[in-house]
Amino acid sequence: MIGEIKVKEKLQTIVYDLAQHLPSERLLTAEHDLFSYAFDASFGIYKPDVVCQPTATEEVVAIVKIAEKFKCPLVSRGSGTSLSGGPLPVGGGIVLDFSLWNTKLEIYPDDLVAVVSPGVITSSINNLAEQYGLMYPPDPSSSHVSTIGGNLAENAGGPRGLKYGVTKDYVLGLEIVTADGRVINTGGRTVKNVTGYDLTKLVVGSEGTLAIITEATLQLIPKPIATKTALISFDEITDAGKAISTVLSSGILPAKMEIMDQHSIIAVEEYEPLGLPTDVEAILLIELDGHPKALNDEMKIVEDACLRVNARSIKIAADNKEAQQLWRARKLVSPAIVKIKPTKISEDATVPRSKIPDMFKRLKEIREKYQLHLVVFGHAGDGNLHPNIIADARDQEEMARVELAVGEIFQAAIDLGGTLSGEHGIGLMKSTFMESELGADGLHMMKLIKDAWDPDNILNPGKIFAEPGQRFVLKND
Amino acid sequence: MIGEIKVKEKLQTIVYDLAQHLPSERLLTAEHDLFSYAFDASFGIYKPDVVCQPTATEEVVAIVKIAEKFKCPLVSRGSGTSLSGGPLPVGGGIVLDFSLWNTKLEIYPDDLVAVVSPGVITSSINNLAEQYGLMYPPDPSSSHVSTIGGNLAENAGGPRGLKYGVTKDYVLGLEIVTADGRVINTGGRTVKNVTGYDLTKLVVGSEGTLAIITEATLQLIPKPIATKTALISFDEITDAGKAISTVLSSGILPAKMEIMDQHSIIAVEEYEPLGLPTDVEAILLIELDGHPKALNDEMKIVEDACLRVNARSIKIAADNKEAQQLWRARKLVSPAIVKIKPTKISEDATVPRSKIPDMFKRLKEIREKYQLHLVVFGHAGDGNLHPNIIADARDQEEMARVELAVGEIFQAAIDLGGTLSGEHGIGLMKSTFMESELGADGLHMMKLIKDAWDPDNILNPGKIFAEPGQRFVLKND
Repeated sequence: MIGEIKVKEKLQTIVYDLAQHLPSERLLTAEHDLFSYAFDASFGIYKPDVVCQPTATEEVVAIVKIAEKFKCPLVSRGSGTSLSGGPLPVGGGIVLDFSLWNTKLEIYPDDLVAVVSPGVITSSINNLAEQYGLMYPPDPSSSHVSTIGGNLAENAGGPRGLKYGVTKDYVLGLEIVTADGRVINTGGRTVKNVTGYDLTKLVVGSEGTLAIITEATLQLIPKPIATKTALISFDEITDAGKAISTVLSSGILPAKMEIMDQHSIIAVEEYEPLGLPTDVEAILLIELDGHPKALNDEMKIVEDACLRVNARSIKIAADNKEAQQLWRARKLVSPAIVKIKPTKISEDATVPRSKIPDMFKRLKEIREKYQLHLVVFGHAGDGNLHPNIIADARDQEEMARVELAVGEIFQAAIDLGGTLSGEHGIGLMKSTFMESELGADGLHMMKLIKDAWDPDNILNPGKIFAEPGQRFVLKND
Repeated sequence: MIGEIKVKEKLQTIVYDLAQHLPSERLLTAEHDLFSYAFDASFGIYKPDVVCQPTATEEVVAIVKIAEKFKCPLVSRGSGTSLSGGPLPVGGGIVLDFSLWNTKLEIYPDDLVAVVSPGVITSSINNLAEQYGLMYPPDPSSSHVSTIGGNLAENAGGPRGLKYGVTKDYVLGLEIVTADGRVINTGGRTVKNVTGYDLTKLVVGSEGTLAIITEATLQLIPKPIATKTALISFDEITDAGKAISTVLSSGILPAKMEIMDQHSIIAVEEYEPLGLPTDVEAILLIELDGHPKALNDEMKIVEDACLRVNARSIKIAADNKEAQQLWRARKLVSPAIVKIKPTKISEDATVPRSKIPDMFKRLKEIREKYQLHLVVFGHAGDGNLHPNIIADARDQEEMARVELAVGEIFQAAIDLGGTLSGEHGIGLMKSTFMESELGADGLHMMKLIKDAWDPDNILNPGKIFAEPGQRFVLKND
């Protein structure tokens, strides 16, 4: 599948060589082990030929050199929560499972940095930082299970992206292993650094196709003292869209600003009745953070802004417990919708904020055209919506409609000046749509970097860049 | 100088070709015109062979194609405020002067973005944004004269970097022209975008060596409602260093946190008496921004933190007018120190915050060893100090000591886990020190990108990457 690589023939030699550098308990070749690495949170099923579980940079270097020698694909993996197929070994080869390498998590409060090994669970960074009055802002929904290495590879986002940005904005430096086995340190431990090209921000988000991340230095910030949450309902979803712009141009930058459409609200209420209004077209959940004295004033501004654009009702949480209750609605969307049908196709098409009402209109048209269960929720404040299609993967006719609908969702985002992916990555799922967003020249300039850094295409081959003639499919055979 | 390029021989043909695409008033070849492009705010004097003043992307494409045909160096330039030699045409060739292309400055308040052409003056972006209640945070000291194109090429910083980050953190998308004349759009208009490699953040800060920026989409944020300023004096400079960490770990993230050492204070008082204490080793200037109700509380926390580490006195500005008075001290440092001697060598070595006291110690040793006028001020909150050496370029013996001292300043920053350059760029001035920070492998990986994108080395040759055998000199002959 990936060029002319014939890993299978050389597999015995590869495994023999790997065994010189890894103890047998961290070198997996049994069929049942390999099969458990054939999945992520997307759709493909691709079995690796061998799995390595490195816990040191020297081990990664040794593995890379073996892979290079045999032109064997090398696919890095954290907890496998990718929604775009990032860790799937589409051409077989070696999977590097970093989940055991969770040994380093150091906070340097005076420098406001954390230094982490790639297998550390994302949420544990913020949990430890909080003990120093600090915060690691990126908060992908999977942060309690995903690894920081996976977050770095995919440039994970999350609700706090609106105010605080995404993973990339908090990476000061990396230790990486290149395709030819060099160990280099990018960036450093300072917020300002303009010494040469920004390899740090190039590697973060490159989905394991340019280098393998073995350590990261992350920036922390002082933890805000307080938060305040509001739930606002709108009869018309376009008014909810307008409320987002109105709030943001009132001098307020909320920490989070999430939207749930009527389909999501109904799904949640059927799953667990929370007393949400099921007859409104949308609700917004807004969290402000900062100084408690400021928050009351700021929430008043938010209320006024929402009422100006016809909010039906506004509920402000009196305390943290009530706030958690309000956020429960948003948290339940994913479990609620998979009760409808088992297969959830979660997209993250992102549009400029002003185009959110238009995007909702396009999504409604797509829902009706293909007669699918399409629910919309997500990080509305930064235009990063999550249109989710609920289907049954065993229903081939339905899945054919899903494939067409997904293609139209991508096209709608691009038509509105947005992007294919705000936070899930391109991986396998969206590679065939890259050219429609970037143009042939844009894609060519990216490919030049890939070819320069990984001329034999051993690092996560088959991702980001589509193979000639490849077409979008949600499932492989 | 740059390889085997023989621009001079072909100059007549090059100028003829350029004249097919540019009107004569924007194609400069007269000796006195060329000479005025031989300088920037650093030290070299390098005359270009011809100067073009493009005002449209098509013109840039035409110029690039001509440069490519003749393998002629192409050096982009804004207002020429670079402190690292970025816009100096060290190998002759074509200078692209973007200063006339200041025609596009559009604010889209609903999307929180600005779209700008490369010649727009940086401060005018923020000035216009403020009319919409928004802010463009990056604020290099030269912002009233520098162009956004230059800021993008160098990834300019400024005092607000502490809280708000640098230029790169506010660039959502670019239009660029590549070395082979392709026009591509990187990124877009959304805060979240993980579609392929981050070419935007690769090109920003690449000092004109990878592509030519012809348009940028910048992120704006809501403008903070109020600010509050304090001037704090310390008998011991190490206590000032400790105060920085103490404040930052108290849950407060000031907008600015500047330091001036005793030498800077004395220079300012001799230049214009402001009533600063000249018998203290350092003063800190701290600006908080946000909601007025929060600022009083936060300033109290700052005061307590500073008193805990032996601050001698704290002066809080009662109003904006008083705040401006306090900031005047910082603003006067540069004009004040050039009264001592005419040549100012301004460095921007940056260290992790916790190493600021150590860096001050190293700088003191260097001052004494080389018997130079070395004053230190800068953006202490993010570790981005500005050691400035005041000398007289006509005194060759002194300049020899300056060169040695500058080399030791760079080494001190690297030894302390910092970086050669926090915000001024590498350019010509620091290229010979790159390998000591990045290692041969780190530099190699950067060079691979340069070679892939600009195989004929026509884009700003001689910058970032040192020529073999090149040695650090402050002046060319």
